[in-house]
Amino acid sequence: MNLTGATLLRGRWTPGTGPAFHAVDPATGAALPGAFHDSGPEQVEDACLAASQAAPAYRALPREVRAQFLEAVADEIDALGDSLTERVVAETALSPARATGERGRTIGQLRLFAGVVRDGDFLGRRHDPALPDRAPLPRSDLRLVHVPVGPVAVFGASNFPLAFSVAGGDTASALAAGCPVIVKAHPAHPGVSELVAGAVQRAAEKSGVPEGVFALVHGGAEVGQALVADPRVRAVGFTGSRRAGLALVHAAQGRDVPVPVYAEMSSVNPVVILPGALETPSQLAAEYAESLTKDAGQYCTNPGLVFVPEGAAGDQFVTSSVRALSEVPPQAMLTTAIAEACAVGVDAWREIDGVEALTTGSLTGASATPSLVSTDLEVFRREADLSAEVFGPAGLVVRYPSVDVLLEALAEIEGQLTATVHGAESDHDTARLLLDVLEDRAGRLLWGGWPTGVEVASAMVHGGPWPATSAPATTSVGTLAIARFLRPVSYQNVPEELLPVELR
Amino acid sequence: MNLTGATLLRGRWTPGTGPAFHAVDPATGAALPGAFHDSGPEQVEDACLAASQAAPAYRALPREVRAQFLEAVADEIDALGDSLTERVVAETALSPARATGERGRTIGQLRLFAGVVRDGDFLGRRHDPALPDRAPLPRSDLRLVHVPVGPVAVFGASNFPLAFSVAGGDTASALAAGCPVIVKAHPAHPGVSELVAGAVQRAAEKSGVPEGVFALVHGGAEVGQALVADPRVRAVGFTGSRRAGLALVHAAQGRDVPVPVYAEMSSVNPVVILPGALETPSQLAAEYAESLTKDAGQYCTNPGLVFVPEGAAGDQFVTSSVRALSEVPPQAMLTTAIAEACAVGVDAWREIDGVEALTTGSLTGASATPSLVSTDLEVFRREADLSAEVFGPAGLVVRYPSVDVLLEALAEIEGQLTATVHGAESDHDTARLLLDVLEDRAGRLLWGGWPTGVEVASAMVHGGPWPATSAPATTSVGTLAIARFLRPVSYQNVPEELLPVELR
Repeated sequence: MNLTGATLLRGRWTPGTGPAFHAVDPATGAALPGAFHDSGPEQVEDACLAASQAAPAYRALPREVRAQFLEAVADEIDALGDSLTERVVAETALSPARATGERGRTIGQLRLFAGVVRDGDFLGRRHDPALPDRAPLPRSDLRLVHVPVGPVAVFGASNFPLAFSVAGGDTASALAAGCPVIVKAHPAHPGVSELVAGAVQRAAEKSGVPEGVFALVHGGAEVGQALVADPRVRAVGFTGSRRAGLALVHAAQGRDVPVPVYAEMSSVNPVVILPGALETPSQLAAEYAESLTKDAGQYCTNPGLVFVPEGAAGDQFVTSSVRALSEVPPQAMLTTAIAEACAVGVDAWREIDGVEALTTGSLTGASATPSLVSTDLEVFRREADLSAEVFGPAGLVVRYPSVDVLLEALAEIEGQLTATVHGAESDHDTARLLLDVLEDRAGRLLWGGWPTGVEVASAMVHGGPWPATSAPATTSVGTLAIARFLRPVSYQNVPEELLPVELR
Repeated sequence: MNLTGATLLRGRWTPGTGPAFHAVDPATGAALPGAFHDSGPEQVEDACLAASQAAPAYRALPREVRAQFLEAVADEIDALGDSLTERVVAETALSPARATGERGRTIGQLRLFAGVVRDGDFLGRRHDPALPDRAPLPRSDLRLVHVPVGPVAVFGASNFPLAFSVAGGDTASALAAGCPVIVKAHPAHPGVSELVAGAVQRAAEKSGVPEGVFALVHGGAEVGQALVADPRVRAVGFTGSRRAGLALVHAAQGRDVPVPVYAEMSSVNPVVILPGALETPSQLAAEYAESLTKDAGQYCTNPGLVFVPEGAAGDQFVTSSVRALSEVPPQAMLTTAIAEACAVGVDAWREIDGVEALTTGSLTGASATPSLVSTDLEVFRREADLSAEVFGPAGLVVRYPSVDVLLEALAEIEGQLTATVHGAESDHDTARLLLDVLEDRAGRLLWGGWPTGVEVASAMVHGGPWPATSAPATTSVGTLAIARFLRPVSYQNVPEELLPVELR
């Protein structure tokens, strides 16, 4: 496995003209061998120019070629084998099993979008035939089709080095839509990014996809801002922190021609436990602890906020949760910065009057043990900080006295990716009220189970009201994600031979 | 016809607590009898509160009731008969024929959306059944449905007192989606607004639609800003000037929870005339003059920019256009301010070096005669002012030396609602290149004909890249307009009896 540390520009690995940096193994804090270079501003600009030059040829390719390209990307990633998963582990400290699982998900996602491309439903074609004899006015022939928006900038996510990075969901859906993609690699996994970008590049060559349809740039916030500001970029895909997401949203809004940023930013994924679910509190607590700490809790869908009824059964759930969490060994987080932000967030919770620390939760280097704190509904509603996402293995338990006041509190919460209700059949009347309120606050509603583990499927919504995402009418996971990179165009009275292929 | 001049709040006509104003007959400049009152800030707030309170009950109504409500609105508007069209003429100076035609269009639009509601396709339902035996992990049952976003603020448009105002396209599509609507009446036709709002209110009562689902407020920019800033408003529909549209976009972006503004803002609707279309230049010129001056040119889709080949045939088209325009009598525009802005815009064109005034184009009060100016492609590309919309009966002819340079110029133009190409079969090879470039710049492409006259149909796109609209992935006319007021929600493993009705 030879890494160049370079920028992928117009189909060639070109040394980055920006500062050098190293990948870091978060488990040890040590720099990994080999230097990477940030892309220079002129390289970012050229990547955007190349994408815009390649856009007409790419969109004009037969859909079958586009589908084969996506499948070829999947094959090339698959062919990277263990070298890829080993690099994932080295750069992220995620487990080998997770790395392998995520590789499978990434490949499956690319193949799923190949199917979407072949199927053609995403084109949303509509036809109103001419009515030449209609009175008082004839109707023209009208045909509608959805066309690709043009070059898309994609930001790799730290917590999904494969499934939401170089050839992840945003890239797969943008390429499927017919849009060239410029990826900014996440600086926390540059080697993984290079490996996957190489796979995309080989697939492009084999499939006859024009040079410039795909580029990989390296860099931090400055490179990201330059990318979003480039006039050739027509849309942006991002998964990450609220701070970074909002910075991109503002940059995109400030352009001469503003463009949409599809930013998946933050969520605490409220879980409501109803009395009927507390028949076996220790079993439920074990599942909760597992979901909260899976891969060090580094999921957008981590159940950071759990509402538990006051009283003995609820007490038992909390006690069991603390016990289950105490058995979770320290886990290395993705980066030292992420681990520190998690510790700061938990400390802020603990300092609030009326919040009780249930675990000691400690941090050594990038290595964290789970934290759990508890409070009551009144304190939760009063203290806005308790609603903020603390990314990592950190949970907040809010005890509620009655469903009536809980409903009021839930109607006030910020937009969320998910909301979950646990209950038994005896809770159904209450649950109906809860689901009504929660539907307005989240993109995905679960009955039982835990929100982590986002299925890549046709009926998935990984989205939700602001600030869970910057574009609540969209999803970034599942086949509907392609809609973000399309816009409708209507053809009026255009003769068959002048219509785009998809409308003939 | 008794007008109260009041605000429609929670189903009751309530005197506005803001300043008084009068409707003006633009044909005479005289105030019409009867005073209107702006809505006070507390009334705007209460309209939003009422909408938000009514939202859950409205979305829970059976779709059939929602469809009947839309049809009842159509019936009530129809029942207003001549009193409505007479008031349109008095407040806008549009012709009786236009007023009657627009009433028909508005009624038809409401009935079309009733059909959309009944049909249910807009729900975009998807289902991935559970796969309990899948390895390595089972798949949950996933069901997706699109739900209403919540209260929508709609701004009446000056140039469509019926079809894009109180019960126009934005209102019809938002109500169809299941969203309550708060309309800000356009101050240029407050009486028409009250008449139509009364029709909506009567329909709501007859259909059992909750109080608060519909409100009418009066006021200017301040009331508009308050409406967009209200935290209960979830989306905004607007048709009007770029300046006003951008002000709303910025207000919506500056909220704690930003919301989308669907603003249809400006377009010059380029028309390209290819040599083959100049076989009968005087016939084409007559059609052009008719489209440019229809209803004093006060259409978003007015063909403000025409590219004509250099040479004798093109000269003849221009000469014939000037002659045809000279036969158009003075027309009263919607307001004195609009007429003055038109005159200012034409003057700005005329002052540019290299621009030739082809008509004298004059203004008396709100009454305007057509203006036509001409320039070459080089001047057009150099002077940004020549690309700005001049709303009214004002046209710019740009002479082009060859299709090659024209293609370069067209690739640079701002986003447009429409682009039109006129040509014969001999022009097809050229036309293909043109349409490829124009597809990237416009929401609707026409072969022959003129862009004015927007069909309300399933395959219509009245939208286009920024700044034609603030949301290029949407349309504000046609059945797809409903998508603006919906967002997807996914239900995971939710038992049948807890699912929303639409997913059972």
